[in-house]
Amino acid sequence: MKNELEKYIRNVADFPKAGVNYKDITPLLASKEAIDLTLKAFIDDLEGQQIDKVVGIESRGFFFAALLARELEAGIVPIRKPGKLPYATHMEVYEKEYGKDTLEIHEDAISKGDKVLLHDDVLATGGTAEAACKLIRKCGGEIVKCQFLVELDFLDGGKRIKSYPRTSLLHY
Amino acid sequence: MKNELEKYIRNVADFPKAGVNYKDITPLLASKEAIDLTLKAFIDDLEGQQIDKVVGIESRGFFFAALLARELEAGIVPIRKPGKLPYATHMEVYEKEYGKDTLEIHEDAISKGDKVLLHDDVLATGGTAEAACKLIRKCGGEIVKCQFLVELDFLDGGKRIKSYPRTSLLHY
Repeated sequence: MKNELEKYIRNVADFPKAGVNYKDITPLLASKEAIDLTLKAFIDDLEGQQIDKVVGIESRGFFFAALLARELEAGIVPIRKPGKLPYATHMEVYEKEYGKDTLEIHEDAISKGDKVLLHDDVLATGGTAEAACKLIRKCGGEIVKCQFLVELDFLDGGKRIKSYPRTSLLHY
Repeated sequence: MKNELEKYIRNVADFPKAGVNYKDITPLLASKEAIDLTLKAFIDDLEGQQIDKVVGIESRGFFFAALLARELEAGIVPIRKPGKLPYATHMEVYEKEYGKDTLEIHEDAISKGDKVLLHDDVLATGGTAEAACKLIRKCGGEIVKCQFLVELDFLDGGKRIKSYPRTSLLHY
């Protein structure tokens, strides 16, 4: 699987800052063949487990969250940056490399006991994913799995969400 | 169609500021029945026209852009806020209610002559949609249609993109 998808990831040197080798997923998004392959890999990975809600993290997580939700006959739930969701929210503040960041989820987005799949495009330091997991738990959701397109192994973000099953299709 | 989907749109008074009646699409996203209905309405509206790329505007436009692309066997192209896209971009600066805003698209996201469907969740003043259309044209894309979930008729945003066919599923 790795070899099939890898060619659709573009490496952009020094983005967003010097020394970072950015993994650009837009060539993958632009290809219907790559979308099909990616979706199949994610679905196969779930081995038929029931999913009620697919949570996508703003904003690149929204693409495959939507696609996975439709494939799984589940609802789509956005986790967004602060101030974007209009209704009552749960909020999670977390540490970033420089300073703090905040994520929100609508309080009514997930029902107690809902089986939840969390999706984001990239697992890096894990701070965002950890905050997202906390938000899902605050709503009473049960996290069945965390799925990522890309995981940056050298940042060891997996340790922040180690209590949940996790799959990343590509590792760097 | 209007009646079927309308119940999935939540009105939130005074968001993001006093006097604005915000149309919240998250209840629609959370319902697989509503996703199915919405997607069917958008696809029926295209009457079998070929689409090569579905362009979604960051970030709420990303959900149905992805779903439409898969349904149409097309690629997904994101139009994003400035500084988010890592590769060479076209840029469009446009007027907002207070000050200016900027949108970007990857230069290589659309090939010359590609048939393009533009999607966003809400058509309001039309400034964002107009900038998006300009970006698609800069890439050489041919805009087949602009589709929106919601159009706020009283803001008359349609006049900004009147040279392109347009469909909005819900009008307020």
